[in-house]
Amino acid sequence: MTRPPAASGAAGPGAYVLGVDSGGSGLRVALGRVELPGPLATTLCAEPVRTGPGGIDAGHLLDQLLPAARELLDRAAASATDDAPTGEVAALAIGAAGMATLGDRLRSELPGALADALGVRRLALAADAVTAYAGAVGQRPGAVVAGGTGMIALGTDLMEWHRADGWGHLLGDSGGGAWIGRAGLDAAMRAHDGRRGGSPALLDRLRAVFGPAEALPGLLYPRSDRPAVLASFAPEVAACAGADPVAAGILRQAAGHIAEAAAAVCPTFAGTEAEAGEGGEVALTGGLFKMGEPLIAPLREELAQLLPGARVTTAAGDPLTGALRIARALAAGDLRLPRHPTMLFVPQEHGGGQRGGTAVRDEPRTG
Amino acid sequence: MTRPPAASGAAGPGAYVLGVDSGGSGLRVALGRVELPGPLATTLCAEPVRTGPGGIDAGHLLDQLLPAARELLDRAAASATDDAPTGEVAALAIGAAGMATLGDRLRSELPGALADALGVRRLALAADAVTAYAGAVGQRPGAVVAGGTGMIALGTDLMEWHRADGWGHLLGDSGGGAWIGRAGLDAAMRAHDGRRGGSPALLDRLRAVFGPAEALPGLLYPRSDRPAVLASFAPEVAACAGADPVAAGILRQAAGHIAEAAAAVCPTFAGTEAEAGEGGEVALTGGLFKMGEPLIAPLREELAQLLPGARVTTAAGDPLTGALRIARALAAGDLRLPRHPTMLFVPQEHGGGQRGGTAVRDEPRTG
Repeated sequence: MTRPPAASGAAGPGAYVLGVDSGGSGLRVALGRVELPGPLATTLCAEPVRTGPGGIDAGHLLDQLLPAARELLDRAAASATDDAPTGEVAALAIGAAGMATLGDRLRSELPGALADALGVRRLALAADAVTAYAGAVGQRPGAVVAGGTGMIALGTDLMEWHRADGWGHLLGDSGGGAWIGRAGLDAAMRAHDGRRGGSPALLDRLRAVFGPAEALPGLLYPRSDRPAVLASFAPEVAACAGADPVAAGILRQAAGHIAEAAAAVCPTFAGTEAEAGEGGEVALTGGLFKMGEPLIAPLREELAQLLPGARVTTAAGDPLTGALRIARALAAGDLRLPRHPTMLFVPQEHGGGQRGGTAVRDEPRTG
Repeated sequence: MTRPPAASGAAGPGAYVLGVDSGGSGLRVALGRVELPGPLATTLCAEPVRTGPGGIDAGHLLDQLLPAARELLDRAAASATDDAPTGEVAALAIGAAGMATLGDRLRSELPGALADALGVRRLALAADAVTAYAGAVGQRPGAVVAGGTGMIALGTDLMEWHRADGWGHLLGDSGGGAWIGRAGLDAAMRAHDGRRGGSPALLDRLRAVFGPAEALPGLLYPRSDRPAVLASFAPEVAACAGADPVAAGILRQAAGHIAEAAAAVCPTFAGTEAEAGEGGEVALTGGLFKMGEPLIAPLREELAQLLPGARVTTAAGDPLTGALRIARALAAGDLRLPRHPTMLFVPQEHGGGQRGGTAVRDEPRTG
């Protein structure tokens, strides 16, 4: 089929790309140039995008994204010293928490709206785990474990995505921050009750952080951010792990769960256990791993058992960096991460800068 | 000190007692006679008593309790065939979920209000675990495990109460319905992801009950009754336990947790483990144990290990029966269960039937 020249091939020199990360702490936007590494500038819109009955609110996202993007573009144009940039936004990638299940409105409304408002020609709408992958691993095969309050593992052989866990604090997120904090508080309450498995050290920490143990249910259950409250206790578990065998056992169990999730999604190893040979890359990313050695040391051991030969790395880039990478790959016509209707949605291309411009078919996936 | 004769000693023949059980499914009221065993009649007010910022709403409880009690008294008077009852309510006992932490308004408002409205002379306000104890064990030393969506163990040597767990689905309730259901759903999601520890049988049950696995988070998390949703899956775990080792392992672990809680509170054994000799009574009560042998068989084994010699019984009476028993013991002046400011609160006695009657000191605890 024939294509209008404006929409085909790689973007021209001087074109911009935008990466967006939408999560619980707000909307972060990064501006970059197609041919330069790294972001030129980033900005934060501190109000998290609303989720309504129809899913993530596309209008609310645009209300924050468009002024932020325009300001970044204006600043870049004013300070550009090399060959004058065109001002064109060749590609934009948005990673959002809940994109897979709550992203229907984004997928239906954003392509037209962003073409109209910013002249965006190429767009990617990604699950936040995919931008975490792109930030931490890039466009190579491998696996990422994104850990924070929750925990999800995502892997790809560049043919398809494999996901494990990330099911939230009541159905999984095993080994994540809320899981570790909850296990620590359980051990503290066991000590309070005189039940087996209790940790007096963790009970001391519970009292120091929350007050009397018997008052904790009354503090926790009325909150709407219960997983975050649980996760706030995870660093206390890590702090006790050096001297307290119960705390160390919790982190060992968490490490086991994280390794199980990584093993389920890592290419080469997916579905098999303890197979020798050349391993893939497993990148650890997110606030969970700021806990450091008390968690990472047992995790390296568990991964060595389940995925012998795998290279364990700590994240090269965050999800915002990943979104910018995806945008740059889209603009350059070499997106190698697998497209997917909800995980990594790349809609049909819009004519750049032409309001109501002709939509053309997206180019076939490059290998 | 001297007492007005009306308030001293045991209640006269023909006097009534009332037992009340306030929980998530409403307010149940039982009417009995001091000198006769069992209830004469019971009734259910289906609207659960509201909990507000000040705790359990005393006015809302009275709005339901008073008409129900008057109707029971009228019916009893009309159908009485023996020596004419006096119509006097010698004692009333209320067991309520949340009484210990949310019962301040009940403790301050009910004694006067019930003396004024029903002429109640003696009142007990008990945690629902205490009425469960009274129903299942009576006034003997022992321990009760009350299991439903949650799980709590309560024991007494008749000197003081010992409580273990009952901390809710995020801090404990280990081995209860929500705990078992959650563990079952975790194993199902593991099978879905290809993680270690998964159960294809439980994944089949998840799909049969809730639909596609990946849609379950969207069904569960918006609900306000998440623990009940989790607990609704517990019978599926029990149904799979005969053929599925993962499901059987979950029930074995639940049995271990329940036995740990019982061991922490059972007199003779409290604080010690696996000591030979004459054991106390451990009564199992509540909907959890309707699961039957898949849970009770491993529980008997775990209890035999942690509390060798303990007699394990299934509940003789429910919490409503327990409330009526406490009321009858109060009326007869032989309440042997230990009083406690929040677990089993027995306020100063009000002059029977005298509006604004003189409050006198409660009699000393009988041994």
